[in-house]
Amino acid sequence: MKLPINIKQLATLLEGRIMGSEDGQLWAPEKIELAQQQHVAFLANDKYLPFVETTKAGVIVVSEGFPVHNYPHQNFVIVDHAYARFSALLEAFQATSNKKSGIHPQAIIDPSAEIHPSAFIGPGAVVEAGVVVGAESVIEALVWLGPQVIIGNQSTIFPGVKIYNQCIVGNEVIIHANAVIGSDGFGFAPQSDGTYKKVPQTGNVVIEDRVEIGANTVIDRAMMGSTRIEEGVKLDNLVQIAHNVVVGANTVIAAQTGISGSTTLGKNIVVGGQAGFGGHIHVADKSTIGAQSGVNKNITEVGKKWNGTPLLEYMESMRALSILRKLPELVKRLEKIEKNSKNNLKDENQ
Amino acid sequence: MKLPINIKQLATLLEGRIMGSEDGQLWAPEKIELAQQQHVAFLANDKYLPFVETTKAGVIVVSEGFPVHNYPHQNFVIVDHAYARFSALLEAFQATSNKKSGIHPQAIIDPSAEIHPSAFIGPGAVVEAGVVVGAESVIEALVWLGPQVIIGNQSTIFPGVKIYNQCIVGNEVIIHANAVIGSDGFGFAPQSDGTYKKVPQTGNVVIEDRVEIGANTVIDRAMMGSTRIEEGVKLDNLVQIAHNVVVGANTVIAAQTGISGSTTLGKNIVVGGQAGFGGHIHVADKSTIGAQSGVNKNITEVGKKWNGTPLLEYMESMRALSILRKLPELVKRLEKIEKNSKNNLKDENQ
Amino acid sequence: MKLPINIKQLATLLEGRIMGSEDGQLWAPEKIELAQQQHVAFLANDKYLPFVETTKAGVIVVSEGFPVHNYPHQNFVIVDHAYARFSALLEAFQATSNKKSGIHPQAIIDPSAEIHPSAFIGPGAVVEAGVVVGAESVIEALVWLGPQVIIGNQSTIFPGVKIYNQCIVGNEVIIHANAVIGSDGFGFAPQSDGTYKKVPQTGNVVIEDRVEIGANTVIDRAMMGSTRIEEGVKLDNLVQIAHNVVVGANTVIAAQTGISGSTTLGKNIVVGGQAGFGGHIHVADKSTIGAQSGVNKNITEVGKKWNGTPLLEYMESMRALSILRKLPELVKRLEKIEKNSKNNLKDENQ
Repeated sequence: MKLPINIKQLATLLEGRIMGSEDGQLWAPEKIELAQQQHVAFLANDKYLPFVETTKAGVIVVSEGFPVHNYPHQNFVIVDHAYARFSALLEAFQATSNKKSGIHPQAIIDPSAEIHPSAFIGPGAVVEAGVVVGAESVIEALVWLGPQVIIGNQSTIFPGVKIYNQCIVGNEVIIHANAVIGSDGFGFAPQSDGTYKKVPQTGNVVIEDRVEIGANTVIDRAMMGSTRIEEGVKLDNLVQIAHNVVVGANTVIAAQTGISGSTTLGKNIVVGGQAGFGGHIHVADKSTIGAQSGVNKNITEVGKKWNGTPLLEYMESMRALSILRKLPELVKRLEKIEKNSKNNLKDENQ
Repeated sequence: MKLPINIKQLATLLEGRIMGSEDGQLWAPEKIELAQQQHVAFLANDKYLPFVETTKAGVIVVSEGFPVHNYPHQNFVIVDHAYARFSALLEAFQATSNKKSGIHPQAIIDPSAEIHPSAFIGPGAVVEAGVVVGAESVIEALVWLGPQVIIGNQSTIFPGVKIYNQCIVGNEVIIHANAVIGSDGFGFAPQSDGTYKKVPQTGNVVIEDRVEIGANTVIDRAMMGSTRIEEGVKLDNLVQIAHNVVVGANTVIAAQTGISGSTTLGKNIVVGGQAGFGGHIHVADKSTIGAQSGVNKNITEVGKKWNGTPLLEYMESMRALSILRKLPELVKRLEKIEKNSKNNLKDENQ
Repeated sequence: MKLPINIKQLATLLEGRIMGSEDGQLWAPEKIELAQQQHVAFLANDKYLPFVETTKAGVIVVSEGFPVHNYPHQNFVIVDHAYARFSALLEAFQATSNKKSGIHPQAIIDPSAEIHPSAFIGPGAVVEAGVVVGAESVIEALVWLGPQVIIGNQSTIFPGVKIYNQCIVGNEVIIHANAVIGSDGFGFAPQSDGTYKKVPQTGNVVIEDRVEIGANTVIDRAMMGSTRIEEGVKLDNLVQIAHNVVVGANTVIAAQTGISGSTTLGKNIVVGGQAGFGGHIHVADKSTIGAQSGVNKNITEVGKKWNGTPLLEYMESMRALSILRKLPELVKRLEKIEKNSKNNLKDENQ
């Protein structure tokens, strides 16, 4: 929606009713303890009850049954369940919509590129020969689309993203600023004189529908064939995906994780931040991998939780890590026994 | 200063006196063992004494009392304490100053943006609607400032930085190349069919005065409210700051560290490289966190030193890690005792 | 080569002979189990033999002696040893060649820059004052070359790379998209009031011949002198190289590894992903460092293999890590002995 919205519009959106003024202009949601006149606050946890009296919020969203009459100086929108309406509330205040189209006069477009009339190409963006951009897609400022890149419909490519030649991006994909898609895989053949020879990386990257990719994340093109990010995958910022990796549908990977070459992740996996995966391994569907883990073997059982380096089942890892701390004490206990044992031997020998 | 400077200018800057020529042209400081005619070398550690005879440096900065007459073929600047003047020496040779202003003809500026006349906007930079840039700030080439971004005074935004809509940058801030400020936080609600629904990220990022941010670092916008980097914070390269994080004043974070969502760091904390912080935790002021540590719990005591995964107090961690190496030997010792103990039992049973 | 190529051209390139049609148009190599009409497949491992019957590949490359007559419906190119020809095969299909030259009309070039007539400067690239670009080098779209940057001959700088002032890039260097070269080192002097003062970073970065640098990698400029990447080095994506580091010739570093300030790596070292190196240490030639290792001490012996945090020799590390898992069991065994020992004491006291 176009901001600001007023309290009446908010009540309509949340299917709630108003107690107090209808007119306040609202620019954003904010925590109840920090909210000012231009904010909508939100009460879904009794811990924040004391702030209802003191908040400067323009309006407070509460659940049916809340004693609004105790706070005659505040404005309320009363909804069925405040918590369940939270996502709708956020959506109401989403940043300026993507409904822009046309080619900015300072975009640089090769004449052979096919840009759908409902798509948008921003200022300073560079679109090379043979590129195709689908309906309602938004290519923001300073993006580079290399030769023969294909972008589907309703996708958003944020400023500074670079997509190398022949890579394919599906529909409703979001790629955040300065991410790089389709750079060469890290392939070098060692030579007898200690130098390395580059192995050509002839493949591409395929990003399926409804994928979201974080800022400054890198996905390398395949040596041969495709590096593939399947539908619904969410990658956080600064993630590294090496050549010929496959990330299965609806898998979620937190920031700064790295996946080495030719490794395949199944579907609906959850990976914590800063985890590392060795090359040429497979991880079964619905696995959960803890932050900073080092995954260096196949995971064949579906739906298990793993952690640590070396990688152990989650509970096993927790037990092992909890003992790490006690190692110095354990060594002392061992030494005591050894001493006793020695004394016993001495006793026996006397 | 404008380079090169001559020896006389250098002596004035360092409040020193000259022994030898005043005229040599100096382009940069360099280590005494590598310095050439165009360099100034610097002697603050007797380990490098042998190089005073052989260096090709245009001039050598030494402390009062140094026997300069033993080296009649060299030029010297003699200062009170050479070591204490080192920073002034470096400052004299800082890269071309930022004192440029005006809008490059090939910058792309929305007419509604307010650019202070003393600010500079570089070639290929894109400044969107409603942006404000303060006095003497430098927006370098190919930077993107999204709608309603505010940049304070005397800040420098290096080439390729992308700042999303509504983010706020204070005064005397430095942001290095290709950093991303204000990308969407990593928030997705799991759906019953295994897919994820994007949670709108309606907040922004606020960067306070005198912050420095490294190249390719990413700071995500808040889901609601602000992700906040307080005054004087220094972030190295490739750091990840998730949504709704607060980094307290004068905290320093080394490269490739990641901070998960809603975590708050206190003031004057020092964090080593590649450390990871879980979400929704708090770290007390003046804590020190070792490189590669995994911080997954609140740290409530001020001023302590921590390390490792699991996170332990520094000395405790060092002791535990030092035993790791001895584990194979400890197992053997345990086995030996078990054997003895068994033998004893046998003996007793005989 | 210009794509597509036909089977006859492929046979000439691989010094092979054709069995079947000569005419099929080939666009890319692909795995035999996935290949379609426009692909060339490749058989070098008997594991894939069953696919020779069923593949839809336009042609299959096999070794001399393969029973091609059993598959009359397929086209083959028969070579001396298929495996040894694999690299030549990939080279045949490399992305559009770099043989482009001239300055794109929408590049932004300072008049004082010296661009060799055979070099190429892409659209939206920004070349500052005093830059030199050598023969046949390709500066792609949206690259920034800061003042006085020097690029040698036959180097390729991919889109979005930012190179700060005075940095030097050699010949036949490849730098992938959005990498940053020459940003300020992370140097700050703590002040008595808890704030930090920036230490000027007056040096540069020198990248020698035949280096390849991955996407979104960062190499900081030296405080004084040069951060140096010696000839033949290969850096993967998202690597962090701090100020005054030296990486020795033909050393290879996998993704997301970080090297702290003033550390020097010898020649022909291999470093796994996500490893971290402390500052001011030296690593001897031909060392191998495992993924996620923490290197915090000098390595003085040439050619050894290391792993883990704390860093241990590889086999020692493997043994220690394998015991981690057994720690809970070891504790139980220790407790059992302690109990027995106590009982023994009781027995003796009775």
